Amino acid sequence: MAEQSLDALVVTALPNILYLTNFSGSSGIVVVTANRLLFITDFRYVSAMSETRGTGHECPGLELVTVESTYDLTLADLLAGMPSARIGFEAANLSVARHRWLQTALGTRTTVPELVPTEGVVERARVRKDAYELMVLREAARRLSGVASAMVADVRPGRTERDVAMAIDWRIRDAGFERSAFETIVAAGPNAALPHARPGERKLAEGDLVVLDFGGVYDSYCVDLTRTVAVGHASARAREVYGAVLKAHDLAIEAVKPGISRFQIDGAARASLAGAGMAEAFGHGTGHGLGIEVHEEPRISRRRPGVDAEGPEGPEGAVHDDLVAPGMVFTIEPGAYFPGWSGVRIEDDVLVTDTGVELLTHVTTDLLEI
Amino acid sequence: MAEQSLDALVVTALPNILYLTNFSGSSGIVVVTANRLLFITDFRYVSAMSETRGTGHECPGLELVTVESTYDLTLADLLAGMPSARIGFEAANLSVARHRWLQTALGTRTTVPELVPTEGVVERARVRKDAYELMVLREAARRLSGVASAMVADVRPGRTERDVAMAIDWRIRDAGFERSAFETIVAAGPNAALPHARPGERKLAEGDLVVLDFGGVYDSYCVDLTRTVAVGHASARAREVYGAVLKAHDLAIEAVKPGISRFQIDGAARASLAGAGMAEAFGHGTGHGLGIEVHEEPRISRRRPGVDAEGPEGPEGAVHDDLVAPGMVFTIEPGAYFPGWSGVRIEDDVLVTDTGVELLTHVTTDLLEI
Repeated sequence: MAEQSLDALVVTALPNILYLTNFSGSSGIVVVTANRLLFITDFRYVSAMSETRGTGHECPGLELVTVESTYDLTLADLLAGMPSARIGFEAANLSVARHRWLQTALGTRTTVPELVPTEGVVERARVRKDAYELMVLREAARRLSGVASAMVADVRPGRTERDVAMAIDWRIRDAGFERSAFETIVAAGPNAALPHARPGERKLAEGDLVVLDFGGVYDSYCVDLTRTVAVGHASARAREVYGAVLKAHDLAIEAVKPGISRFQIDGAARASLAGAGMAEAFGHGTGHGLGIEVHEEPRISRRRPGVDAEGPEGPEGAVHDDLVAPGMVFTIEPGAYFPGWSGVRIEDDVLVTDTGVELLTHVTTDLLEI
Repeated sequence: MAEQSLDALVVTALPNILYLTNFSGSSGIVVVTANRLLFITDFRYVSAMSETRGTGHECPGLELVTVESTYDLTLADLLAGMPSARIGFEAANLSVARHRWLQTALGTRTTVPELVPTEGVVERARVRKDAYELMVLREAARRLSGVASAMVADVRPGRTERDVAMAIDWRIRDAGFERSAFETIVAAGPNAALPHARPGERKLAEGDLVVLDFGGVYDSYCVDLTRTVAVGHASARAREVYGAVLKAHDLAIEAVKPGISRFQIDGAARASLAGAGMAEAFGHGTGHGLGIEVHEEPRISRRRPGVDAEGPEGPEGAVHDDLVAPGMVFTIEPGAYFPGWSGVRIEDDVLVTDTGVELLTHVTTDLLEI
């Protein structure tokens, strides 16, 4: 905020609000100044926030402001009462309509503050996890690994994808997660060729490859894991594809260390699959950051021409934002998909340490034949 | 679109995209013109959309556009190729950052289209459900009523709120819902005084009132239901509060008919609770619309001064947008909350018919003592 000469920052993105306050409800606005942390919320949540007093989830120094009529009217009143000239807002979150309304509402006040668009102020803090966050993510990954080991028992010929997904969701809750981090994917046979298939009425059959992709939210933090298993005997082709994806997965994890660019990590997986003649079969990125959101920075993906900043890759002279750094947590999840046939994806969660990489999830990567 | 002289409308809000195309993934942009329906999506979803061909969920005439680098770059290329002068966008959804980027990107093209903010174009169509939507919502409400009747068996002294919530979530999935529509609320004893309590480790105890609020998504449509039950014998005070909330619930439902304002429906519940001396205990709105979103228009709430349009209430001369009309589906869910003691909420889903109201959920409203 000092870098951008901001007197206050209005935070409207819910994950950022949770990061700053521990508030995990669905409606709120935070206003941060050099000395104050104000939190606007409504009747429904005021009592819930008061409940955190004296617990480990209390946000020290938080000043609660209760909404009387609407959030934005309360915000405008609050901002108009501040002796602040430059007020940052989150341009990636605030809608054009809310921005226009706020600008008009503030324009009628005696002191008219300047609204300044900002990008990623809170997100830049979120990308490197602190000790508490790492403790939570390690524990979450440990629990999700337990789910992954146990769910093998749910995969049985004759059960529908949907039934298996329900059983996994139950295990996720039973392992102490607040909820599944996203809609659990169970994709069998040809459905496994769709990276984002939804579990349906297809019954698991002998010879199917089954992609099982699931995650959990633990103390507000997300972890994510995928395994692909065979129902009965795996064909020669299934073994070949599985082996190629596993090699890409292992090489990408080995590539992770502080100072390497996220494009290089992606490149390690991509080059490996290309070497196996499966370049076209791997259409998505290698991974994504994990934290309060199940998809956050850093994106472990190809450099997109004209979108990602240009610059030499690697530790010397690289574009700083593209280098991974200690405390970053992300997935490594290469896959290979063949429409009409089937697909394979293998996903683990890793932490960048001071010297290299720490694997957070621990489940066998052998091709299981169930 | 014709009213606002728009040559095209860019739709970025996911519920509106689902409404227009049946696409239920997490990334996409729709561009509507007088004759075309274009859908921009990425690799992950292109094959999933192709899968709907020939099924009841196929969107006829949909033209798929695959993202090469980014969504917004693909959108800019598409818009720049159109001979359109005025292009509407959803001001309540498009962020300031995306709007700025798009304006800059389009500014460099040979034909520079004008970006026009719009509000609620698709939402206005969504608020009155068509025959297919009503069929889905009726079936969803029937199934959720079954869950509500069955879940009484899950409420037992000694079980934690969390365990009961998990059991209800299982029943929701088992009843054929895609997922729970929101995080299931099971709030026992003093926790029931928090309208948005999260299920925790509190064990249900003799004498507790327990608020159970849950919903399901069925074929992309949301339904929502709440019952409050007593564990063991209900106290005289519990009976009094329950009776007052039930009376407010019944009076609000009786008030529903085409042409009445949403404020009047809310007023029926509010006046009834005020008559019982519980005005202060009812801090939220009486209900909310149901559809692709679990909270959508119409909001059955108090008129907010300076926010909602002014005008006389009732059929004559009322502000049109505030009148309910046939095909609208919403919840009726008054409550009374007493911090430190407990709370009661009773919620059902209703449809406005040509002549009055149809109750969609059917579960006893007697105070059950379990």
